[in-house]
Order: sequence, then C-alpha cells, then structure tokens
Amino acid sequence: MAKTAARKRLDPAERRTQILDEMLKLCANQHFASITMRQLAGACGVNIALLYHYFDNKDVLVHATLRHAIDDFLVAFDDLPKDADAPLGAADAWIAATIDAAPRLTRMVKLMSDFGTQENRDAEALAMVDEFYARERETLRQAILEGIADGRFRQVDAERTARLTSIAIDGVFYGGPARNDFDHGGNLRDIRDQLLEFLARPG
Amino acid sequence: MAKTAARKRLDPAERRTQILDEMLKLCANQHFASITMRQLAGACGVNIALLYHYFDNKDVLVHATLRHAIDDFLVAFDDLPKDADAPLGAADAWIAATIDAAPRLTRMVKLMSDFGTQENRDAEALAMVDEFYARERETLRQAILEGIADGRFRQVDAERTARLTSIAIDGVFYGGPARNDFDHGGNLRDIRDQLLEFLARPG
Repeated sequence: MAKTAARKRLDPAERRTQILDEMLKLCANQHFASITMRQLAGACGVNIALLYHYFDNKDVLVHATLRHAIDDFLVAFDDLPKDADAPLGAADAWIAATIDAAPRLTRMVKLMSDFGTQENRDAEALAMVDEFYARERETLRQAILEGIADGRFRQVDAERTARLTSIAIDGVFYGGPARNDFDHGGNLRDIRDQLLEFLARPG
Repeated sequence: MAKTAARKRLDPAERRTQILDEMLKLCANQHFASITMRQLAGACGVNIALLYHYFDNKDVLVHATLRHAIDDFLVAFDDLPKDADAPLGAADAWIAATIDAAPRLTRMVKLMSDFGTQENRDAEALAMVDEFYARERETLRQAILEGIADGRFRQVDAERTARLTSIAIDGVFYGGPARNDFDHGGNLRDIRDQLLEFLARPG
C-alpha cells in the first residue's frame, strides 16, 4: 500500500525526475552497465513496468540520467545571482554552484567516467559531456579575459589557465573517492584562491 | 603449442609480472569486479589453473595488481636521474616519470577509482593508494620548500600548493577519458609551467 500511495503522489514529471535521481545515485557505486532495471525499480519503490513506461530501454534511461544531471547543474548555475563585483565574475558563480552541487556532481562525474572508460565510445554520451566541459572552460576563460581587460588581472594565457582550472576541478571530483578526500568545498575554494593569486598583478 | 612455448619462455617472476600487466590492462575498460579469472587466463594465453598457482584468489590478484602498478611507478621515479638544476628539483623528475608512464598510470588510476567508488571501502587497497599520494604530495612540497629556502620561489603555502598540484595531476588522468582528452604529456607540462609561473618571484 505504501508503494501505491507513493506512486499516486507523483505526477509524471516528478516521477521521471525521481527515477533519474535514483539511477544517478546507483551509478555512484556501480558501473551503469551492471545496474538492472529490476534493481532501479526496487530503489524507486515502483514496479519494473512503470520504468519501461517512462524509458523504452536501459540505454535511453542511462542517457537521460546523464542529460538530467548536466541540465540540473546548468540550471542551478544559470539561476544563481551573478555578482558583478565578484573577483572572478561569473566563474565565481560557477565555482559556487559546483560547491553547492558537490554530492550530485560526484555522481555525475562517476557516470561520465564510466562512459569515458568504456571500450566502445558512446558518441551521444560523450557529446553531452563535451557540452558540459565547453561551458565550464568558456565561463572560466571569459572571466579571466574580463579581468585582464579591466586591468585587475595580469596578462596570462586565458585559454590555458581556464583549461587547467577545469582539469583541477576534475581532480577534486574524479580523484576524491580514490584519495579518500571528500572535502570538495575546501578543495574548490583553495583552487579558486590559488587561481586569484596566480592572476593577481604583482606589487 | 604456441601457448606451451610461451609458457616455457617465462620464469616465475616474469610470468607473475605478465599476469599483473594483463590484469591492469583489463582494468582500464572494466571494473575489476566484473573481470573473470577465465577472461584473464585467455588474455595471458595460459590456463586458469596457472593463475591460481600464482594467486590464491581474485582478491589477492587485484590487490597485487594495484601494488604492482604503484611500485612500478615508484621504481621508475627512483631510477630517474635527479637534475640538481631542474627548476622544480625532484618534483620535475616526478612529473617526467608521470609523463613517461602516462598509459600505465591511466590504468592505475582507473583501478584506484574503482576501489574508491566501491560501496564497501577496501582498507588494504586504500592504504596503498594513500601511500602513493603521500609520496606525490611530499615530493612536490619538498621541492617547493627548497625553492623558497633558496630564494628562487616566493613565499607560498607549500602544503596547499603541493596538494592542489597533486589534485590537478589527478584531473589529467581521472578526467581524461570523460573529457576525451588524452594529451597527458601536454597537460602535465602545462601544469608544471603554470606552477613555476605561480612560484616565480615578481619582477
């Protein structure tokens, strides 16, 4: 009865979101290929037929999970107020969104990583991943270029600095579980502070 | 007959190394939990009984694979000549070893990551991983402290800078497959160059 009650409470959009959130959680500790529809149904407290009502097959579900995770982050970033006086401009909002969303991003990068290390590259998934990284790099690069144009930052290679900052952020998330270091907020703030020190004009 | 000939060629130490190398290769594209002893035997061109002659069970084998990968890197680093005039001292040798060993390190961090994201934390494996990172951070930290003591580098928080550099190196390896960016050499050289710029005294 509890299950039926739970099912009644959610409208289709909420149910879809719940399924994708549960799938993303399972992906944190398991390769998506080894997660069964039955297992996911159990985690959602629904029957397996309902999953197939929302997603034709597991392939569609896994791609929708990645899409959901990325969009969710990008929407959170877009919704964040952009403080014109923030030292890193929109990049400060990006880093703040990253800190806020750290638990979800940990799951998202695990899913990205599982797609990335697959023997057969999945073009559709990797295109979504590319879109995410392009947005991150571009946000960082623009913020650095604006600071240089304003004379607040010294002349640096903005493309390289943005790329290396994006790589360092990756190190926090992808490497955290192996390093047993889950202080994502602290590490991300340190990356930001060191970046600002790097960009500071001498004197 | 080919298999028999191959088996005769290797002495026990070589055979053990071959098995561990093949296992490490399989770990690059598969979670270690889903690799079967049969699959590994096939990859090595030996029969499954021989694997059990060297390793009592898969758990022992997987731990030996991680140990092998880490030791292999540390030996390569220790063997590398340390150029007293290198701007980053021993850390330059560390980064050079990392560039040289990039394909193997990609496999090693995938294995580390699979241990790190397991639901049940594996204390033995994580202790080996910790040992590797402690060595990396300490090598970087010492090199930075020496440069500060010599007056070549400005005063920075050596612990933080070493930790963030280690995290950025992680980003190159762990994040590479998802970002579809396999220019490990280029990215590592950029991290080194940016670090030296960060450490440079103004003027």
